[in-house]
Amino acid sequence: MTRAAGTLILLRHGQSEANVAGVFGGWADYRLTPRGEEQAVGAARLIAQAGLLPDVVHTSLLHRSIRTAQIVLDGLGRSWIPVRRAWRLNERQYGALTGRGKQETRHAAGAERYESWRRSLHRRPPPLPEDRLALLRADPRYAPLPGDALPAVESFSDVVARVLPYWADVVAADLFQGRSVLVVAHGNSLRALVALLDDLDEPAIRALNIPTAEPLLYTRGPDLRPSPRGGRYLAPDRARTAAQAVAAEGHA
Amino acid sequence: MTRAAGTLILLRHGQSEANVAGVFGGWADYRLTPRGEEQAVGAARLIAQAGLLPDVVHTSLLHRSIRTAQIVLDGLGRSWIPVRRAWRLNERQYGALTGRGKQETRHAAGAERYESWRRSLHRRPPPLPEDRLALLRADPRYAPLPGDALPAVESFSDVVARVLPYWADVVAADLFQGRSVLVVAHGNSLRALVALLDDLDEPAIRALNIPTAEPLLYTRGPDLRPSPRGGRYLAPDRARTAAQAVAAEGHA
Repeated sequence: MTRAAGTLILLRHGQSEANVAGVFGGWADYRLTPRGEEQAVGAARLIAQAGLLPDVVHTSLLHRSIRTAQIVLDGLGRSWIPVRRAWRLNERQYGALTGRGKQETRHAAGAERYESWRRSLHRRPPPLPEDRLALLRADPRYAPLPGDALPAVESFSDVVARVLPYWADVVAADLFQGRSVLVVAHGNSLRALVALLDDLDEPAIRALNIPTAEPLLYTRGPDLRPSPRGGRYLAPDRARTAAQAVAAEGHA
Repeated sequence: MTRAAGTLILLRHGQSEANVAGVFGGWADYRLTPRGEEQAVGAARLIAQAGLLPDVVHTSLLHRSIRTAQIVLDGLGRSWIPVRRAWRLNERQYGALTGRGKQETRHAAGAERYESWRRSLHRRPPPLPEDRLALLRADPRYAPLPGDALPAVESFSDVVARVLPYWADVVAADLFQGRSVLVVAHGNSLRALVALLDDLDEPAIRALNIPTAEPLLYTRGPDLRPSPRGGRYLAPDRARTAAQAVAAEGHA
């Protein structure tokens, strides 16, 4: 048992090639940029300065979250902690938008449709075309999923639905055993997690943006729920500015 | 299920700072050198060329094996596979020799004693002094071990005894489920594994040397035992030369 037992740190991966290109990353396996790697080093420094020592780390199956976690744990001298990976922590499946430019998409689809694809609860963009879905089905990392569980596209609510079991059965179980847990994931899988933790309503979910590589800390409240509401960014001013930039993605 | 199901690849970490300095690394947490990182990239290339795709990776709790595994898997596009870490795969606990120069040790202790410490089955060097053992007991990575299970020194047979349950309960179980398994560990934990796999007698164990970052392949024999005897190095000539250099460590 380490200091600050039962704490939860949420961390979006560092800047990826998709972030730099301004495209929807989704389930495409973009890598970190050199700046994204530096951001991960900085995140480790913040976590160390806060005296937090993760006992276990959870990542998605996508390289940008895996590599971010490796760099953070190396910076903390904690490469040896148990690692769990799960497709349930993957970024939202953006369907046909995957790899497409956000600005171009906003222009082509119109501002209203673009924002509703990005930030509404239930709207789904067009699905992945069949040939791209077939490639995904052939990817061995998703082989354990039954074929019809592999999403061709997801709404935000779909993401919440597949993150929920992982939160309840795995991450929360770690926390309740007193572990300090680091979850390194993606903009939308973390929005889903925050929506669950804080029981957010639709306007709050729409307004929620998670910046890259900014550690977001929850400690264990007296009612066994993570607290405070909304968590606490370890670098709050920088995180706020970065979150506003995420909100504005795709705008000219 | 991937191609070459049920195969086992053993890999000693790439060159570490201890290897370069010519000291006993043991449980001290030396890092890879830049050359060690390059070696890991090369190991990935060999594994890829052989058409091998690990489904699961096992490492020790020491950074040099963890980092080697990360580089190899990244090179294979397989960073997402499940990772298991275990102290049972750690390097041999060299006790008071840890961090001491091999040449200096051979000079001080005499050639016979030096070789028997390194290569006999049952001889143990002097244990870690109490203050260094206390530091190890305080290391959170070993917190799950009961205090008296933490070795102050180990003979080669001690290493075999603690590797054996991990082989039988975890690695062999993976293999028998048809998985391709990559084990990234250390000179002596891998010697122990090979001794178990090949049921080696004492002269064969004494003569056994595992070079850094050379993939050693076993496939599944008809009797469910890994085969061939001794495994097959993917770069046999280079591995043979490197193994001879390991055997000669500490000689002037």
